[in-house]
Amino acid sequence: MIEPKILKGFRDSMPSREIVKKRMIASLEENFASYGFVPIDTPALEYSEVLFGKGGGEIDKQVFRFKDNGGRDVAMRFDLTVPFARFMALHLPELQLPFKRFHVNKVWRGENPQKGRYREFYQCDFDIVGADNAEADAEIVSIIASSMKKLKVGGFTVCVAHRGLFNAFLDRLGAADKSEDVLRLVDKLRKIGRGEVKAQLSEILESGEKADAVLSYIEPSENDGFIERLDKLSALAGGESECTARMKEIWALLDEETKSHLVLDPSITRGLDYYTGIVYETFLDGAPEIGSVCSGGRYNNLASLYTKESLPGVGASVGLDRLLAALEGNAEALGSSASADVMIMNLGAGKGAEARRLAASLREKGFRVDCYLLDKKPAAQFKYAEGNGIKFVITAIEDGVCNLKDIGTREVMNGLDFDALVKALGEHK
Amino acid sequence: MIEPKILKGFRDSMPSREIVKKRMIASLEENFASYGFVPIDTPALEYSEVLFGKGGGEIDKQVFRFKDNGGRDVAMRFDLTVPFARFMALHLPELQLPFKRFHVNKVWRGENPQKGRYREFYQCDFDIVGADNAEADAEIVSIIASSMKKLKVGGFTVCVAHRGLFNAFLDRLGAADKSEDVLRLVDKLRKIGRGEVKAQLSEILESGEKADAVLSYIEPSENDGFIERLDKLSALAGGESECTARMKEIWALLDEETKSHLVLDPSITRGLDYYTGIVYETFLDGAPEIGSVCSGGRYNNLASLYTKESLPGVGASVGLDRLLAALEGNAEALGSSASADVMIMNLGAGKGAEARRLAASLREKGFRVDCYLLDKKPAAQFKYAEGNGIKFVITAIEDGVCNLKDIGTREVMNGLDFDALVKALGEHK
Repeated sequence: MIEPKILKGFRDSMPSREIVKKRMIASLEENFASYGFVPIDTPALEYSEVLFGKGGGEIDKQVFRFKDNGGRDVAMRFDLTVPFARFMALHLPELQLPFKRFHVNKVWRGENPQKGRYREFYQCDFDIVGADNAEADAEIVSIIASSMKKLKVGGFTVCVAHRGLFNAFLDRLGAADKSEDVLRLVDKLRKIGRGEVKAQLSEILESGEKADAVLSYIEPSENDGFIERLDKLSALAGGESECTARMKEIWALLDEETKSHLVLDPSITRGLDYYTGIVYETFLDGAPEIGSVCSGGRYNNLASLYTKESLPGVGASVGLDRLLAALEGNAEALGSSASADVMIMNLGAGKGAEARRLAASLREKGFRVDCYLLDKKPAAQFKYAEGNGIKFVITAIEDGVCNLKDIGTREVMNGLDFDALVKALGEHK
Repeated sequence: MIEPKILKGFRDSMPSREIVKKRMIASLEENFASYGFVPIDTPALEYSEVLFGKGGGEIDKQVFRFKDNGGRDVAMRFDLTVPFARFMALHLPELQLPFKRFHVNKVWRGENPQKGRYREFYQCDFDIVGADNAEADAEIVSIIASSMKKLKVGGFTVCVAHRGLFNAFLDRLGAADKSEDVLRLVDKLRKIGRGEVKAQLSEILESGEKADAVLSYIEPSENDGFIERLDKLSALAGGESECTARMKEIWALLDEETKSHLVLDPSITRGLDYYTGIVYETFLDGAPEIGSVCSGGRYNNLASLYTKESLPGVGASVGLDRLLAALEGNAEALGSSASADVMIMNLGAGKGAEARRLAASLREKGFRVDCYLLDKKPAAQFKYAEGNGIKFVITAIEDGVCNLKDIGTREVMNGLDFDALVKALGEHK
């Protein structure tokens, strides 16, 4: 006998979780598609050289990398961005630019799993490549906001900032050479707190005064709206610039509903050097402690590792597993995880065909119908329905007329013809 | 610069293919769910011991197997059945039996890729565990048939047989000890032809007479219906038995529509020893040469490797990649791969916000709307729409009234208000 164990950092997705996850993915994908974005997929395995570049380096230890049976040095993808860059370089001649794509699938990381982090998880990316303008930047904001609405997450805020504006400010402060360190530190503000950021800023900038200046840049007045904040930040960064103009254009393109969720938050930097323009993070009012559930930004050149073609892009990624964790207990967002809308009891051998005919008719009306398969006592059959979260049970059928029981309320509705049955089930759908 | 190459036997899924594939998967999953089946997922990586048993053996060379960073002997799953067995053994106490699950996801095989075969592909399994009866066997037939209908594959035939009946026949023929070889050979009838099967049968059974007997068993009269064939096969196998009774029960449970696709074909054996009862294969009238697109059967004991609990099951698997290949050119089955229903032209900076408001309103009506992002000449914008298969382009907007062009017919509809626009787009959806 072999122990049916799972690798550390991996897990099975049970039906109750998988039903909700699939519904969330379907909702996101439908929303992406409503903006004209198209799906792609890439292999789970790639040449290591393609994923890491010539060197390899530190990320190496965090991936599943091995020699395949043909002796090739291969690795399982650790994100969807690098394969996308490779994809763009390879297929550029076949694609129309701007290319708007989404990609929802698994990635793998070998890192030591911490609480709530796994070695296998879903990424859910959407990007526009080949358009460096406010229209593209604004479209990503719009998709982030509409995605959150479709997922019914409740209150949320999309925080944006402009990396170029921050860098102009640091330049004026005489700290341009420390930009990388400062941005990476500021990115941790929510995590490590103001005091710690100030202490470390003073160290990096070798000046308490400059540290205070940075803090005053990243902590605008609560009362200022988007444009007021933008104007004040511009002033701190040396006056109007392309960055200011771009942010104003983006603001002008958005509708009131989207604007109501948008906050200009100069403390958002996204640690990575990668980003060059607008950056996005998204926080749920109900679970700010969980961090950003949808993040991204603008990058200058997606595929420079593989092609001389310059491919500017902008995009974001929904943290699906994080979102699922954040929404735990939020019944409206998660929805039902019942396996079916109604179960038809097993009423003995003679009733099998009639039960199946009724089931087929109900399925045509859009109901999920489970015919209980074993000839067991009613108590066992009800237990099965309850265990699967099924609300209704059909307890008798005779010449197209049936009895229905609501397991939750224990209400019994007898003598329903097909139309009455559809009506009763439909009212609770 | 690194060459953006892909590993041999792997491929990118381009938008036109991915759109169709996702639609097929959604249609299949919706159909499975309509029978009360629930989705699960399992890790892509498992302990090698769990996937291969203590030994390992021949399948070894056909899988991606390696030592992870922690020195564990791991492998990428090569099917969804073995992980499902492990899943059932591990989670048995939490699950309600009968357990009806579907699982659609990637598997990997290291075998040398032949034409049309890849090292990475989707499997699409649905099984019922914990019910050894005609109801469960019939439900799988019903799901196979309804899945083919939902996928609009055109004409199709679900061929079934009973392994037990064939074995009873071989027993009576005095060839019970050759059963494994005979069943594996008969399974190849469609591929290698009658003559070759007869020659090899004579060799295996060391008798031309016995070979003829087997051929007469697997080649029933064209004119006989399901029940006539069953009775004749029963007679050849020594008279009525549990197997005959089971097949009659299954037939009695099915509706006329499903029966019209069902054929009792004793040459269907499914090579594997694994199956013990009914076996299924599904052929498309339009592409019989491609082989079965949905196959499966009943097995006695799913998880004997991991648990003493006996778990009888029955299920089948849709060959998604094979189906996609078979349906190439079948516009009705494949559906549209357009990236959007309508594109709104980029009409210059001043029109951006109005275009986006219109796009949002159309999305609320269920349309997929692509706002063209670059300020390019009309010709370039039309080329983008055409390249993405988008049928309609909005060429002007003024105070909520717009002009629409049908790219296919070159028809122009001017001065449409929102309702008229929705109507024009809706008529072609």
